[in-house]
Amino acid sequence: MSSNLSNPLHIQDPVEALKNTFRNHASGVAVITMLDESGKPIGFTATSMTSLGANPPLASFNVSSGSSSWPALCKATWVAIHTLGEANQALAEKMAADHTKRFLDDDWDFGAKGLPIFKGVTSVLIAGIREIHAVENNAVVIVDVIDGLVGVEQRPLIYFQRGYRIG
Amino acid sequence: MSSNLSNPLHIQDPVEALKNTFRNHASGVAVITMLDESGKPIGFTATSMTSLGANPPLASFNVSSGSSSWPALCKATWVAIHTLGEANQALAEKMAADHTKRFLDDDWDFGAKGLPIFKGVTSVLIAGIREIHAVENNAVVIVDVIDGLVGVEQRPLIYFQRGYRIG
Repeated sequence: MSSNLSNPLHIQDPVEALKNTFRNHASGVAVITMLDESGKPIGFTATSMTSLGANPPLASFNVSSGSSSWPALCKATWVAIHTLGEANQALAEKMAADHTKRFLDDDWDFGAKGLPIFKGVTSVLIAGIREIHAVENNAVVIVDVIDGLVGVEQRPLIYFQRGYRIG
Repeated sequence: MSSNLSNPLHIQDPVEALKNTFRNHASGVAVITMLDESGKPIGFTATSMTSLGANPPLASFNVSSGSSSWPALCKATWVAIHTLGEANQALAEKMAADHTKRFLDDDWDFGAKGLPIFKGVTSVLIAGIREIHAVENNAVVIVDVIDGLVGVEQRPLIYFQRGYRIG
């Protein structure tokens, strides 16, 4: 499938082009948590979390509006953004699997703004949801960072070639 | 600066919280190119490029509206998104340095939609700009992927702790 510069291989199907690109593009791994309207903890793994600017401090992440977290997210005021490191691969996997089993373990507690905060991650940002832009069956969420926690210093967890790796 | 779960260290300054988090969060590295209104090639390094959904194929990236590429980007119709690998660190550095020197070398050519396409990268997406959302002095750019190129298979370039690494 690889080629060189002088003979690049076209992928005419744009869905396949996108999939090929994101198999080959590394991303950091985050877990985003919130409360639903009844106060129940909700959360999910995101590989799209990124900075949007430092002054004022802004971040963004993308989410499918078909995800189990969407009904809570689109009504939430606050989110906790956890960045994950090499010790957190099991957390990344859990928060992308069965949504009814994401908060059963003793690896989190309620913290700032009542948000569920997982332990042992690299860092946590506390942020307010500022804008949500719906795009087809997805959304771009833009947040204002108001506070943060320093966690465990460790190598970063990355997602690449459809699997987790240590960066 | 590190701490453990039972004793997380608060960062009360949200700008410092954001900076700490993004020092410790890895990201993939992309180069985004376009033409300005006069047909001149414009481009920059982005560590915020991410998938927004596969059906239809969408991607997003963030940019400062103070960047040298912004005047061209906010009027552009098409962009080429290059994902970078271990052999492309010099390209990442060049496309984040002096903007007058980014297209002086023989490492690119005009390709689909007349876009400047760099050689030897991991993959290239050809995409149409769909929406730009201004947020303070930054913008979220949402694009429709229409085509792609398979490039050189290699380990991914990542940005972490303010430097480039091989993922």
